[in-house]
Amino acid sequence: MPARVEQEAPLVVVANRPPATYRRGPDGRPSPVRGGGGLVSSLAPLLDGTGATWIGAAMTEVDRELAALGPRSYRGMQLELLAIDPEVYELAYDTISNATLWFALHGLFDRTREPTFNRSWRRAWDAYRALNARFAEAAVQAAEATPGSTVLVQDYHLFLTGTELRRRAPRLPAVHFTHTPFPTPEELAVLPDDVAVEILRSLGAFSSCGFHTERWRSNFAACCDTYDVSPPETFVAPLAPDAEELEHVLASERCQHHRAVLAERTGGRRTVLRVDRIEPSKNILRGFLAFEELLRSRPDLSGEVVFLAMTYPSRQSLPGYRAYRAEVERCVERVNASLGHDGWQPIQLEVADDFPRSLAALSLYDVLVVNPIRDGLNLVAKEGPLVNARNGTLVLSREAGVSAELGSDAFLVNPFDVSETAAAIGSALDLDAVERARRAKALAAVSRRRTPRDWLDDQRRSGQPGVP
Amino acid sequence: MPARVEQEAPLVVVANRPPATYRRGPDGRPSPVRGGGGLVSSLAPLLDGTGATWIGAAMTEVDRELAALGPRSYRGMQLELLAIDPEVYELAYDTISNATLWFALHGLFDRTREPTFNRSWRRAWDAYRALNARFAEAAVQAAEATPGSTVLVQDYHLFLTGTELRRRAPRLPAVHFTHTPFPTPEELAVLPDDVAVEILRSLGAFSSCGFHTERWRSNFAACCDTYDVSPPETFVAPLAPDAEELEHVLASERCQHHRAVLAERTGGRRTVLRVDRIEPSKNILRGFLAFEELLRSRPDLSGEVVFLAMTYPSRQSLPGYRAYRAEVERCVERVNASLGHDGWQPIQLEVADDFPRSLAALSLYDVLVVNPIRDGLNLVAKEGPLVNARNGTLVLSREAGVSAELGSDAFLVNPFDVSETAAAIGSALDLDAVERARRAKALAAVSRRRTPRDWLDDQRRSGQPGVP
Repeated sequence: MPARVEQEAPLVVVANRPPATYRRGPDGRPSPVRGGGGLVSSLAPLLDGTGATWIGAAMTEVDRELAALGPRSYRGMQLELLAIDPEVYELAYDTISNATLWFALHGLFDRTREPTFNRSWRRAWDAYRALNARFAEAAVQAAEATPGSTVLVQDYHLFLTGTELRRRAPRLPAVHFTHTPFPTPEELAVLPDDVAVEILRSLGAFSSCGFHTERWRSNFAACCDTYDVSPPETFVAPLAPDAEELEHVLASERCQHHRAVLAERTGGRRTVLRVDRIEPSKNILRGFLAFEELLRSRPDLSGEVVFLAMTYPSRQSLPGYRAYRAEVERCVERVNASLGHDGWQPIQLEVADDFPRSLAALSLYDVLVVNPIRDGLNLVAKEGPLVNARNGTLVLSREAGVSAELGSDAFLVNPFDVSETAAAIGSALDLDAVERARRAKALAAVSRRRTPRDWLDDQRRSGQPGVP
Repeated sequence: MPARVEQEAPLVVVANRPPATYRRGPDGRPSPVRGGGGLVSSLAPLLDGTGATWIGAAMTEVDRELAALGPRSYRGMQLELLAIDPEVYELAYDTISNATLWFALHGLFDRTREPTFNRSWRRAWDAYRALNARFAEAAVQAAEATPGSTVLVQDYHLFLTGTELRRRAPRLPAVHFTHTPFPTPEELAVLPDDVAVEILRSLGAFSSCGFHTERWRSNFAACCDTYDVSPPETFVAPLAPDAEELEHVLASERCQHHRAVLAERTGGRRTVLRVDRIEPSKNILRGFLAFEELLRSRPDLSGEVVFLAMTYPSRQSLPGYRAYRAEVERCVERVNASLGHDGWQPIQLEVADDFPRSLAALSLYDVLVVNPIRDGLNLVAKEGPLVNARNGTLVLSREAGVSAELGSDAFLVNPFDVSETAAAIGSALDLDAVERARRAKALAAVSRRRTPRDWLDDQRRSGQPGVP
């Protein structure tokens, strides 16, 4: 079969979250609300008006009602909402995707206590398998309705779709893209062998599997080797922000308003910034501890610098996430109580999900702290340099996938090393203007090198027969 | 230089713990008490009467007084106690050895919160370095006092002695033996780079480095490669129990008394046993959860089997260990309250360090559970088959170093997989008499294959120039 890269094969995107969820408006009619989250923000705008199909889980009650009516038109896409049994969905989403796979993929288990694979976990695994089969079935139906389709499956919620896709449609081009890290064989071995093999075999059933960086790709290949699973084609395709769209939002009145408010709040002080979900992998606590250590070792910075933390709650149905949020808040209170003075609050914690405000903050930082314990890519590290107006510098964890692209112009740190992170923030603040400008320019250039469309095209292309 | 293997070079053993600590007797004179712990029990009997030197930290107030008087004779050894400044010792032993290195070597950090490398951690690292230099200096002095000596340094408390030994005595044969697991490069990367490199360079300065199993040796070699450190010679030398000594203790009146008491307590019921320090790496909680799952799925076992847990407190100066002990006790209470009946307690938890009693228990089990999250070797898994009188079976974690030797005749389990562990205990209980006998014989044969002297000779030999 000839490669059909240039023909733009029709796409069937399969992702846990749909590009929009529906609520009932004042007139009682269902109206769509575009979803948040990195995947939807990156991918949905590229598919608007293309006739692509997007298969996602029904999230709201209204979604469920609409799901019964079949695929519907949404912004020039075919949107297919799957109404999953709520108990099945909760087991698959909370217990497997978020409490097991997320932690395994990010190396975050407190192994003394977690994971514990017992009978109730096995019931949840069955639910995850059933949910994946449901998505695969819908994907095959959609692909068969539009001959020549390529299926693009997104992320760890849908690791097990590959086997079922392949069983139903042996020759269907189907790609999986993992947005998280992929662990080493030693790390994957925390899972029961049959579970690890089931995941790897399913990924191996895709035409190809993509990752944000070479490190995760080669870990995946090593896992296939260790578990004796035939690997699929693999590719590396880092996501990047849409620079034009960011500039567009930045120019908006709402964003300009937030810029003014934030500028007043920081009172002209130099600003260290983080923008993150409140999520253990993001390493928010050690970021604050590093700032505390910096302030204690550098009295000259007292009153002169603020740490602005734009954070927003996440996965609050999981007790571990609620506990983490409380720890973050207590840490901020302690640092502010012990080091603040004369109306100067060293750390300003903002807990609300507001993209224009986050973008306004990104335009204002002197130092951006992106210090995850582990991260598939981290898009904020690329968004910052694109919109920042102060030649801000970047303190970046070497455990973020994006460090492969931005590492040489950032201050790279070991995320567990609070002293190193403190010193990096200090060095970043001290940098002379020439070097700041040089680094900021280099970071922006790398961040602009690719677009979301490049990332999508890499997936599309990798699904074509004979095109690895 | 010719190899001098056959000549039995004089030994200088360097270990955190001395073979004996001193207390003042009723007459006011200091009297030695042989230490517990696996290392002392294995090594000290081999050195009694040999004239070897043993350098260890002064543990008691009386030790400190004696330390000032210089090396002393103890059971035909030269015992040199080092009086380390108590603050330095606490920082090196608690903060570095036990709260950092132990957790890094066993992959046990709850990475959301630990480790945190900050300024106070760096002070502790300086203390660890100073303590190591002190041991190295004493070792060189002792070796120079007896020409032809070989220095044998034991375990992770003394990782940094190598550099200092080599600086003071470039040609002195010096061997390091690691009793714990050694991590992969990905796992070692949790440490600050300079710390990881300092450890690897120091180990690289030894004539050779030994490990209990090939897995830890090859991890160490991979770490040297990743961190670009010249590796030393390496060797694999699994420790084994002294079978004769075990039989001697087993025949003692005290041990026979415990056997009778334990037999009465279990009331003729089939017995599942564990013998462990109360230590997160030992995975005591999941062992009980597995037993609970087994009882819930197999009503025929209710009242018919007991889980005897001979556990003893450890490192109670670390809050994490106190918390873990409390969790273990709560778990036992919960399981017994919910499943026990008619005077039958499913789990009998014994918290006391009593070797003859533990050995009595090992003679009586039907199933021995050794399910660590990770373990350098695990000597109990070899002691059990040597003294057991019931053709008992072994449920063994694949993460224990000893699984390389005993795996083919044990029920191997993933330590995180409670269901698999439950099924393995069930299968072990169900095994027919012929297969039980075959396995028990095979396990005992492997456990008897080596002696502590073999292990010591491997170390001694590997220190000789030209003998890898």
